[in-house]
Amino acid sequence: MMQRFARYLPVLDWGRTYSREALSNDLIAAVIVTIMLIPQSLAYALLAGLPPEAGIYASIVPIILYAIFGTSRALAVGPVAVVSLMTAVAVGQVAEQGTMGYAAAALTLALLSGAILALMGVFRLGFLANFLSHPVIAGFITASGVLIAASQLKHILGVDAEGHTLVEIVLSLGRHLGDIDPATLAIGVAATAFLFWVRKGLKPLLRKLGLSPRLADVATKAGPVAAVAVTTLAVWGLGLADRGLAIVGEVPQSLPPLTMPALTTDLLGALFVPALLISIIGFVESISVAQTLAAKKRQRIDPNQELIGLGAANLGAAFTGGYPVTGGFARSVVNFDAGAETPAAGAYTAIGLAIAAVALTPLVYYLPRATLAATIIVAVLSLVDFSILKKTWAYSKADFFAVSATILLTLGLGVEVGVSAGVLLSIALHLYKTSRPHVAEVGLVPGTQHFRNIHRHRVETDERLLTLRVDESLYFVNARFLEEMILNRVAGNEALRHIVLMCSAVNEIDYSALERLEGINRRLGELGIGFHLSEVKGPVMDRLKTTHFLDELNGQVFLSQYDAWRCLATNPAVRNAAE
Amino acid sequence: MMQRFARYLPVLDWGRTYSREALSNDLIAAVIVTIMLIPQSLAYALLAGLPPEAGIYASIVPIILYAIFGTSRALAVGPVAVVSLMTAVAVGQVAEQGTMGYAAAALTLALLSGAILALMGVFRLGFLANFLSHPVIAGFITASGVLIAASQLKHILGVDAEGHTLVEIVLSLGRHLGDIDPATLAIGVAATAFLFWVRKGLKPLLRKLGLSPRLADVATKAGPVAAVAVTTLAVWGLGLADRGLAIVGEVPQSLPPLTMPALTTDLLGALFVPALLISIIGFVESISVAQTLAAKKRQRIDPNQELIGLGAANLGAAFTGGYPVTGGFARSVVNFDAGAETPAAGAYTAIGLAIAAVALTPLVYYLPRATLAATIIVAVLSLVDFSILKKTWAYSKADFFAVSATILLTLGLGVEVGVSAGVLLSIALHLYKTSRPHVAEVGLVPGTQHFRNIHRHRVETDERLLTLRVDESLYFVNARFLEEMILNRVAGNEALRHIVLMCSAVNEIDYSALERLEGINRRLGELGIGFHLSEVKGPVMDRLKTTHFLDELNGQVFLSQYDAWRCLATNPAVRNAAE
Repeated sequence: MMQRFARYLPVLDWGRTYSREALSNDLIAAVIVTIMLIPQSLAYALLAGLPPEAGIYASIVPIILYAIFGTSRALAVGPVAVVSLMTAVAVGQVAEQGTMGYAAAALTLALLSGAILALMGVFRLGFLANFLSHPVIAGFITASGVLIAASQLKHILGVDAEGHTLVEIVLSLGRHLGDIDPATLAIGVAATAFLFWVRKGLKPLLRKLGLSPRLADVATKAGPVAAVAVTTLAVWGLGLADRGLAIVGEVPQSLPPLTMPALTTDLLGALFVPALLISIIGFVESISVAQTLAAKKRQRIDPNQELIGLGAANLGAAFTGGYPVTGGFARSVVNFDAGAETPAAGAYTAIGLAIAAVALTPLVYYLPRATLAATIIVAVLSLVDFSILKKTWAYSKADFFAVSATILLTLGLGVEVGVSAGVLLSIALHLYKTSRPHVAEVGLVPGTQHFRNIHRHRVETDERLLTLRVDESLYFVNARFLEEMILNRVAGNEALRHIVLMCSAVNEIDYSALERLEGINRRLGELGIGFHLSEVKGPVMDRLKTTHFLDELNGQVFLSQYDAWRCLATNPAVRNAAE
Repeated sequence: MMQRFARYLPVLDWGRTYSREALSNDLIAAVIVTIMLIPQSLAYALLAGLPPEAGIYASIVPIILYAIFGTSRALAVGPVAVVSLMTAVAVGQVAEQGTMGYAAAALTLALLSGAILALMGVFRLGFLANFLSHPVIAGFITASGVLIAASQLKHILGVDAEGHTLVEIVLSLGRHLGDIDPATLAIGVAATAFLFWVRKGLKPLLRKLGLSPRLADVATKAGPVAAVAVTTLAVWGLGLADRGLAIVGEVPQSLPPLTMPALTTDLLGALFVPALLISIIGFVESISVAQTLAAKKRQRIDPNQELIGLGAANLGAAFTGGYPVTGGFARSVVNFDAGAETPAAGAYTAIGLAIAAVALTPLVYYLPRATLAATIIVAVLSLVDFSILKKTWAYSKADFFAVSATILLTLGLGVEVGVSAGVLLSIALHLYKTSRPHVAEVGLVPGTQHFRNIHRHRVETDERLLTLRVDESLYFVNARFLEEMILNRVAGNEALRHIVLMCSAVNEIDYSALERLEGINRRLGELGIGFHLSEVKGPVMDRLKTTHFLDELNGQVFLSQYDAWRCLATNPAVRNAAE
């Protein structure tokens, strides 16, 4: 009974054995993550086009719900860069930024996303995430990183600009170059440079000063907090806000409010596809992080239970003033590195953020938006990695094509088009490849019972016997190809008496292909050529046995290609050698 | 030079050797086909919601253009039932039936369809038709036949009714049952019964009366003309038209007019997807007929040139008052059976129809619409064949599911949804199957060098060696499955020292799968287990050699599984037996 509950409520599993040591490790991790999350949450909320407090709210209840339903011990759930950008795009299509309707639509998006994730989990549809190939994900994340960084440039420059594609953003920035605010630019550039230095130069420096690797790491993560503190003080001290520098301003001091997503049919219809994309992208990001971290400690992640955990987190976000969330890469790694042992670390982080939401928000009044933009830029540029282009170019042109299309379309037409096109394109390329399968004419490798391609290996052949190994399942997409290929091979080959279709790579024969095989069999029969099969796999054979095909077959089915060879090859030397 | 032209203009090929005998055969076929086509063309135009003469016009210029550009010797191009229905659905979405806009939109649809077909031909995209699996086509044609027959019932009953789905049509008929016109019903039922009898009972009778099979066949095809003549005379003689019986009425006496399709962006946008579906469905119907007939005479069909031929025919229809056309099954078979030898038969048919359009149209003034409906019903019911459900149920549940969904969705939601869903569903089912591939643990078949599934055959195994044959290409959809499957097999198996992945069925390893293989290799390395590959195909090996995977591989690549067995199996009895 407990076992069955525990499957759906992993908290019952680790909760029962929770030790004092785990508590202290979890608490330390929570403090570190909380400090890191405060500026990040504010920043991502602004990226999503929402008021800054939405980022904090989206990190509180969702973390707790994930701790109850999720299976990863170290995953930290909350707003992440890519999902924030996708939220801005999706909600921007249905509401004006800054209106009540915008915030309500963001809640609706979280609700839909939560429902989709939870249902996928209940119906065990986690495998759908597999349709995102590695190159498509890598291309999409890289292009999104570039888009996000570009979208933040306006805050660094202190100008107005808009757009959801790289071209729109760049053109819009270009039109406003005359409006650059020098104070904003100074703070923005300084913060960005400082954060880059923290990331690249601070850790080696601290190590040289004798800090332990772990402490140096933690200190490095506090870089953004230092940038926030210093720039906030600068703005306050120099009175820059009065001279037009954009600041965060008033943030309500409050626990996450109870909110109600807007539920009109129009809105649900308009947001469904974006919610689906956000769910799948969010799930892929989250499960990748969770599996990487779990593997390091020999723990297991259940993808379908993860869907339920993320679904619960998003439903939580929808009712507590948040927006779509997922397991974030950066925050999860920090949580893991800081020593978090159980999901309770997440719950303590939630408490820390709740305290911050109630007590610390007045402190960020003078926080410059340029500083938040700088933290985003530095964070997302670490996601940008164009090396996938080089790697796929070397390995497979089809994969390269899928990556480049995903990158170009994401940059040129936006995140939704980019990722959808990437998925469809990689499926189409796969189907195209299977539509013209590789076919090898094979012969016997001398001294063995093994058959290989006559063009790649020195093999024995027989002019009366043609053995073709079709390297693909036979199904509707290539059924016609198969028929044309075999009939073309037969045409004009007077010596030919037998054709063997070596089926070692044929994993399925569907109904369309069966019809073609029947046609080939009839045609070869008219020509007086025997049609044989060899090495037919069990599941394929089971299915053929339900039809009349085997009765009508103008030849035999051989267990192995070697059996076929011994029976059909008529070259006497070959027969003698074989026996 | 001539050769190059001949490739794109097949007319240059057969035209140069055109003989007096071919001329006479073609002329006879043309007369028979013309007689059959007159009522059919009128009927299909009404089915498409167009004035009856549009059906004649759509049969004249398109036939001639196909004769010049097409590769089939016997194909007869013109309006066909399914495409007429699809035209009614598509054009009905953008214009009111009976308006000028409706006819203009039908021309636009033909123009778009012609352009799509011709471009597919030029870019050699004929393979796209392969994405329609046999079950989906069979289901779609059957369901369309039912829909068309149902849509004609209103003409038999003499009532108003509308709808593009079976439910709509039946409900609409139900509401109008009180308005049934007895005279129309009498003529409609009599014509339908007569045509069924002609189809089923007349030919045996004529054979019994001593007619040659071929003559009996031709006489049978003239059945619709007899029905047309008798019912027209009855309506005229009894003055039924004045009592409200629907007749064809005035049909202009004219050669096909020069027409201009409407070309607004809105219209082109709205009709693009329907035109694409019509093009592909039309192409599939046409190529199936053409290949069947060509095979009987050992002739060849070039699918890409066929696309150009059909494209030219549709462009012709667009500018001469027609609507989308394709190679029809019934008319092509009649043409073939009547002895047509070259596409010139089509040209003579066009001349016959042109004479009919100029001279004979007054004769159909009193032709009852019920008679035309009867010819359609009898023609399409011969397409209806639900046996595909039984056949696929026995062979493959996935194919059965694709057929049933196609039939139900076509009947329930219309032709466009039905065929699109069928295609998407069969692709999705295929991908789903490949996402969880069949994996066999294999052992050595005693006395051979052949390896088979340990659960299906008596084979030798070795506890330190696990050989897995994955029956699928390794690509992004199943890459994660592969990793989980292997790691699960390893867990808790203490004796295991080597894993061999037998790649005889692995036709591709894409970049996503390569990354997973690298992960598996690392993980097995940590566990001290060797990771080997066997029977890797040439193209797959070529690609692996471009990476570092083979250098880092924690094991070997064996040419054959038997080599792997000899090298790795440690069971002494086995080793001795093998050596």
